[in-house]
Amino acid sequence: MLFHDCATAPSPRCVRIFLAEKGVTVPVQQVDLMGGKHMGPAFRALNPWCTVPVLELDDGTCVSEIDACCQYLEAAYPEPPLMGRTAAEKGVIAMWAHRVAVDGIGAVAEALRNGAKGFKDRALTGIHAHAQIPELVDRGRTRSAHFLDWLDARLAESPFVAGDAFAYPDILALVAVDFARWIRITPGDTHPALNRWHAAVSARPSAQA
Amino acid sequence: MLFHDCATAPSPRCVRIFLAEKGVTVPVQQVDLMGGKHMGPAFRALNPWCTVPVLELDDGTCVSEIDACCQYLEAAYPEPPLMGRTAAEKGVIAMWAHRVAVDGIGAVAEALRNGAKGFKDRALTGIHAHAQIPELVDRGRTRSAHFLDWLDARLAESPFVAGDAFAYPDILALVAVDFARWIRITPGDTHPALNRWHAAVSARPSAQA
Repeated sequence: MLFHDCATAPSPRCVRIFLAEKGVTVPVQQVDLMGGKHMGPAFRALNPWCTVPVLELDDGTCVSEIDACCQYLEAAYPEPPLMGRTAAEKGVIAMWAHRVAVDGIGAVAEALRNGAKGFKDRALTGIHAHAQIPELVDRGRTRSAHFLDWLDARLAESPFVAGDAFAYPDILALVAVDFARWIRITPGDTHPALNRWHAAVSARPSAQA
Repeated sequence: MLFHDCATAPSPRCVRIFLAEKGVTVPVQQVDLMGGKHMGPAFRALNPWCTVPVLELDDGTCVSEIDACCQYLEAAYPEPPLMGRTAAEKGVIAMWAHRVAVDGIGAVAEALRNGAKGFKDRALTGIHAHAQIPELVDRGRTRSAHFLDWLDARLAESPFVAGDAFAYPDILALVAVDFARWIRITPGDTHPALNRWHAAVSARPSAQA
């Protein structure tokens, strides 16, 4: 297996943390996103959607998208489970993962990609150019602020995002909260539960990934 | 288990088809989205994100979001598998599912919700109002057209979306293609592989769900 990564990007960080929690080490190929290597023909042959992370399996099969990479790893390396053991756990974990991916990581990306000069005509990932839409900067920022609020409320009632145990949604939420710094949105005194949780998950060795 | 559904909405249709493919029948509660019942306190207690589908399990646990409902059902009713048997199959299926969900269903929803009068201030699902953004109608339509194009290209090289067997991404893609009719985007003569596939999956009894 070869892991196509970008050390500075939030999406592949989810997979890096997932791998670290599994105790799995894989060879890594850095993809130069700033240099546009993900849009070139060599990378496009691996992932026509032109995004990292990508897991290139030994038979040449490529798995891209955070969720798909983690589904693969969960099945290939079941211990410790990060996506639930029972059917109900799997469902609840997938539910919270979706909420954090869309309303956390997605919200921050919406604000960032529609405003930053470096993302001109790259408001969405993929092969097609999409112009920035200024209203989406405000919408993304509003949604990102909502994300911190509901994550704090959730963590006031639950030790971890999906329940009593550290799991996949905590990985996504850690990446989302840290990613929100890019748009200068950070938890504050009104987010005590979120701050408690963030300190705890940031202290895990995997958070360095 | 109680399935909170809305017979006219595309998202819960994914779960209806999934259930039908599993041969599982569950009690159904229709949620009156047009009447705003999903925003009321009773439904919000089940799903604070105010969306269908929701699977309410016998112990009161609620699982919302298409992907999470299907992950639950796949684990609870493993046969026939719709999300892969091997780790590689699970990863590849999750990858295609993500692509269809975001670039198919998500693209059509972007065009529809930002333009239709009935979605004024409801450009995104959830408890918070989000104003419609006219540019997103055009972007959503462009993305929906791209979706049909790449789905056709994919189905020219593969019998089903994720490979040789009917699976979860075919369910999402069927719903996405049918949902695109709502914005008057339909496959045409330039999509022969998509048309072949659409006829085949539409002929399955589950497509009536």
